[in-house]
Amino acid sequence: MGSTGDDKSYVDVLIVGAGPAGLMLAAWLAKCGVKTRIVDKRGTKVFNGQADGLQCRTLEIFDSFGFGDRAWKESNHMLEICLWNPDSNGKIQRSARIPDTIPGISRFQQVVLHQGRIERFFLDHMESCGGLHVERGVLPTKLELDESLLDSSDAYPVTVHLRHLSEAEATPQQTGTSVNGSAIQDGLFRSNLSADDTAELIRASALDAKANTEEVVKAKYMLGADGAHSWVRQQLGFALEGESTDYIWGVLDIVPITDFPDIRMRCAIHSADSGSVMVIPRENKLVRLYIQLTTAAYNGGQRADRSKINPDVILGAAQKIMAPYKISYRRLDWWTAYQIGQRVGTQFSAHERIFLAGDAVHTHSPKAGQGMNVSMQDSYNLGWKIASVVKGHSHRSILKTYEMERRKIAQDLIAFDHRFSRLFSGRPARDIMDAEGISMDAFKDAFEKGNLFASGIAVDYCSSMIVAKESESNPVVSVQELAPEVKIGKRMPSVKVLSQADARPWHIQERLPSNGRWRVMVFAGDVTNQPQKEKIERLGAALGSKGSFLQRYKPTGARYDSVIEVLTVHAGPRNAVDIFDFPEVFRPYDEIDGWDYEKIFVDDLSYHEGHGQLYETFGIDPNKGCLVVLRPDQYVSYVGPLEDYDAVDRFFSGFMIAQPAH
Amino acid sequence: MGSTGDDKSYVDVLIVGAGPAGLMLAAWLAKCGVKTRIVDKRGTKVFNGQADGLQCRTLEIFDSFGFGDRAWKESNHMLEICLWNPDSNGKIQRSARIPDTIPGISRFQQVVLHQGRIERFFLDHMESCGGLHVERGVLPTKLELDESLLDSSDAYPVTVHLRHLSEAEATPQQTGTSVNGSAIQDGLFRSNLSADDTAELIRASALDAKANTEEVVKAKYMLGADGAHSWVRQQLGFALEGESTDYIWGVLDIVPITDFPDIRMRCAIHSADSGSVMVIPRENKLVRLYIQLTTAAYNGGQRADRSKINPDVILGAAQKIMAPYKISYRRLDWWTAYQIGQRVGTQFSAHERIFLAGDAVHTHSPKAGQGMNVSMQDSYNLGWKIASVVKGHSHRSILKTYEMERRKIAQDLIAFDHRFSRLFSGRPARDIMDAEGISMDAFKDAFEKGNLFASGIAVDYCSSMIVAKESESNPVVSVQELAPEVKIGKRMPSVKVLSQADARPWHIQERLPSNGRWRVMVFAGDVTNQPQKEKIERLGAALGSKGSFLQRYKPTGARYDSVIEVLTVHAGPRNAVDIFDFPEVFRPYDEIDGWDYEKIFVDDLSYHEGHGQLYETFGIDPNKGCLVVLRPDQYVSYVGPLEDYDAVDRFFSGFMIAQPAH
Repeated sequence: MGSTGDDKSYVDVLIVGAGPAGLMLAAWLAKCGVKTRIVDKRGTKVFNGQADGLQCRTLEIFDSFGFGDRAWKESNHMLEICLWNPDSNGKIQRSARIPDTIPGISRFQQVVLHQGRIERFFLDHMESCGGLHVERGVLPTKLELDESLLDSSDAYPVTVHLRHLSEAEATPQQTGTSVNGSAIQDGLFRSNLSADDTAELIRASALDAKANTEEVVKAKYMLGADGAHSWVRQQLGFALEGESTDYIWGVLDIVPITDFPDIRMRCAIHSADSGSVMVIPRENKLVRLYIQLTTAAYNGGQRADRSKINPDVILGAAQKIMAPYKISYRRLDWWTAYQIGQRVGTQFSAHERIFLAGDAVHTHSPKAGQGMNVSMQDSYNLGWKIASVVKGHSHRSILKTYEMERRKIAQDLIAFDHRFSRLFSGRPARDIMDAEGISMDAFKDAFEKGNLFASGIAVDYCSSMIVAKESESNPVVSVQELAPEVKIGKRMPSVKVLSQADARPWHIQERLPSNGRWRVMVFAGDVTNQPQKEKIERLGAALGSKGSFLQRYKPTGARYDSVIEVLTVHAGPRNAVDIFDFPEVFRPYDEIDGWDYEKIFVDDLSYHEGHGQLYETFGIDPNKGCLVVLRPDQYVSYVGPLEDYDAVDRFFSGFMIAQPAH
Repeated sequence: MGSTGDDKSYVDVLIVGAGPAGLMLAAWLAKCGVKTRIVDKRGTKVFNGQADGLQCRTLEIFDSFGFGDRAWKESNHMLEICLWNPDSNGKIQRSARIPDTIPGISRFQQVVLHQGRIERFFLDHMESCGGLHVERGVLPTKLELDESLLDSSDAYPVTVHLRHLSEAEATPQQTGTSVNGSAIQDGLFRSNLSADDTAELIRASALDAKANTEEVVKAKYMLGADGAHSWVRQQLGFALEGESTDYIWGVLDIVPITDFPDIRMRCAIHSADSGSVMVIPRENKLVRLYIQLTTAAYNGGQRADRSKINPDVILGAAQKIMAPYKISYRRLDWWTAYQIGQRVGTQFSAHERIFLAGDAVHTHSPKAGQGMNVSMQDSYNLGWKIASVVKGHSHRSILKTYEMERRKIAQDLIAFDHRFSRLFSGRPARDIMDAEGISMDAFKDAFEKGNLFASGIAVDYCSSMIVAKESESNPVVSVQELAPEVKIGKRMPSVKVLSQADARPWHIQERLPSNGRWRVMVFAGDVTNQPQKEKIERLGAALGSKGSFLQRYKPTGARYDSVIEVLTVHAGPRNAVDIFDFPEVFRPYDEIDGWDYEKIFVDDLSYHEGHGQLYETFGIDPNKGCLVVLRPDQYVSYVGPLEDYDAVDRFFSGFMIAQPAH
């Protein structure tokens, strides 16, 4: 080793693994200004393959960081799922069409985009937030957690040794496939058909005295986002629980030459006896085929024989399944193969100091298009919490909600994937007496029900100090019926409202960027009605008072909305109201910028984009209104009456830390 | 001079001036792969000021180059115009609200964005098209046109001497305003209150023996986009015709501190006796105020006394006009002043070898938000024509349409601006007997009518070899009634259609990028109806034949759609049709990429974005259908029956050049 030991540095958060889960945490921490390092053992980011569907919810999250539009523009949009099954003569035929995204659940629909582009968006975002960079070719070799320091907010209880690899070590080996004379990248090194190479890398790099250096990093918090073989998880001694199946799948990314008419649709094709293909149309004319391998590589319950799997074998299987349609290619972009397994981690954190996210705590099949999404949403859940604790805004106790909230999601995912994979991998039933076959009606039904789950919109977090659902322990309980469609525990739904000051239409979600702020949404109702106006005056007086929660939790010198932002949506009409009709706390004054014109909105007809009908859609009575508290990740914490300022004050008191008086 | 003369180089097109008009031409030529140089005497691009409204049509054009979304995202959207006038006591009051963009005329609405950002989008676009860069600090000093070479397609009849300036010479002088201790940029150096400095620069730079070099450039074509004082225009000896007014206006870009409730709306404020203010809300909390200066600088019909104009004087005028509302600022971003004048060039080109565009051929007041738009649209009209001629696809004769089409637009603009400026600059009438005052009803009416003009959508090009309107000379005449709302001479309107292959909704305009291609749009009608299907079969046979215009004008080895692209929209239903129901010429085959899935669309209901109702909206009968020919700039050349392949063939024969047989 070149250097060691004494070379000690300090960081608030250390992230191991720069895939989507690690990058999502880095994005949050960069945005919130938390001192962070992110390392990855690989020498470069992903350039080929690793495409995946992006759920509606993932696109909403991307948009909250400001790059949803880039994903939307570059991706392939999937609109429809076509189910193909054998007819009575065994020939495949289209049996159903269903929308890929359930209409109305989100302002986005599911799309597909290469993981390399998604990583690029994160990297650009991190660059724009002060220049956080991924350190590549860096491998952790030793991990210690000092349990005596767990509850000390200034301490660095995590110690990690990091080794810097040479470029050759950090480059994964390829199998050397070539097509039409050009070398093709494959993803076998990440597949569960290959053994993990971390231990080997540690061994190999230790022998190379010249190229490598080692350093010691002290961190307050750490994330292991280092994949299914997670080294961090192994150091912590946590297990993954679940099972493998015998199904082996090949993946081809090709520009297809085919007379199959639905090649640009998402298709599930069940052949009579030759297995199944899933078609995922991608950007740049590419199509991904997931192909069940029923013969070549299957090895009687043992790990598959990797040497027998290659693009020709996979294409051959697809041709058999899709016959009588022809399919071939001249351009192969990437390929891999894997064996399905579904597992969930027993623990998602060690003492809320070292966390695990993504494949490190849940593995499953890729075909449902969930993996990358759920992984990113893990660390999206975690990021603002760590930032808030590190910055001294919140008590450490909120970190317990990470495992509470995300482990259940992982379990749901595994259950969904288990059911879906079996239906997809099975042979279609020949008739209703064919008990071993899969009923195609059951398959279609599963697909349609799965679509809501697969959108990411259904996520519903349980009661906790930050989700004021009814429970024995919660000191604050919501009044859900004031806004029946703003569901506590779920992400804030979105409709269009108009900015009062300039009549511009905005989706509500566009006004909820991921910047670490809590939000109090004041649904003021019809303020041209005197009783509503009086409620708003009283609420304004409480919020504007010196001891209000807006003041108590705001650090000295910080902007008025830096920790908790107040956003108001009244019921209109727009033309009868102006922003000066509201107390100043709803449109705060700054001596440089003047009054804030971007805090008050109205539910009214726009000139060009219709009428969001917020009050009607959310079930809010304009003559009652309500208060809604949103977490920094846009999940609904609380719904209650405009008159109950105290409940909201009590809610924030449960986990926020009062700042020094100023 | 460091070096001279012998240093001769050749370029297809030389552009002088890298403002919006020059950059627009550069964008086209870069996209079409034409060898181009673009020079500007200034040392840097614009960083402050120079903001302007972007018309709907300008945003459509930006989108056709792929950066409409960037402008849309960064700009301030203007939704409403509020008119403020004196009440009977002389106090200003809001008298009307009108939509800033007429609903339904475009998929975009008018926005405001700093010119520096717009230049950035162009520069990024040019970079992405092979790396065309602006050469800054470069000044033309001598211009010759060899009239003996005008008609030779391989000749370089334009000779220009270019001098490379030192950095100091290329930096415009500032007046040195400061606010709150920081220096403020102003735009006086570009204002018509300042004399042009080109002649001075040439003199000064000639004396500096060390820093400067001179080179000789030979060009096939040249554009003078060098502003109101155009050196190119002066060399050609062309005049601007028109008049000046006595009105002097100041411009302030500030972050306002004000209790005026409509400061984030576009406002026209007429005070009783103190003049007028126009409010243009901008991005980043900025507001631009155009303020009539009635006292300080006015100098009895002579050029205004520039030394008497400064930000305090301009703000003071605004405060008087906007009283009793208060307005002040702590942040001043930029300021300038100008005197209104309306002039149009007598000629827009010298022998269709040297062209003028933008302020070089039309000047007018900035308040109508037209200047930058019309300037960019000049060179948007010109760019594809030059590219097509340089590449040998079209006869030089199409270049005559530039002046035919754009001079009329400039005249319309001047007339509009003349009327609008007088209404805006005048004193409001006290009552209907006040004949010298401006009627506020007339003003509102002018504003509303002006909005269509100001959108850029109303542009209607006259009959020519590339616009098959009825005229004596035109060998091809359209049948407008087959698609009454696809108006010949106007830009193609847009509604949403679905891609047949993947059900994705697209605005038609999104499928008409600015890449130099002509398009034949086949509105196939209801192809499940046998007579329509037969028409399409016959049309497919004609288009697919060896001698068809698609073949004749395609260079050897070029892609099937490189010069003329066929796009089809049928009337559905989507589920009853697939792309293999159409002859192959409608979905061409490539041996690497397979069939083209991106050429056939359907007018049907989408899952998430409604139903464009194209056939109904455009007035096309699904049992007739029609053919539409679109120019590369999306203007409609021709509308005719599906059965009349020959008319379209004849149309293209009028100006296209048959390529060598292959």
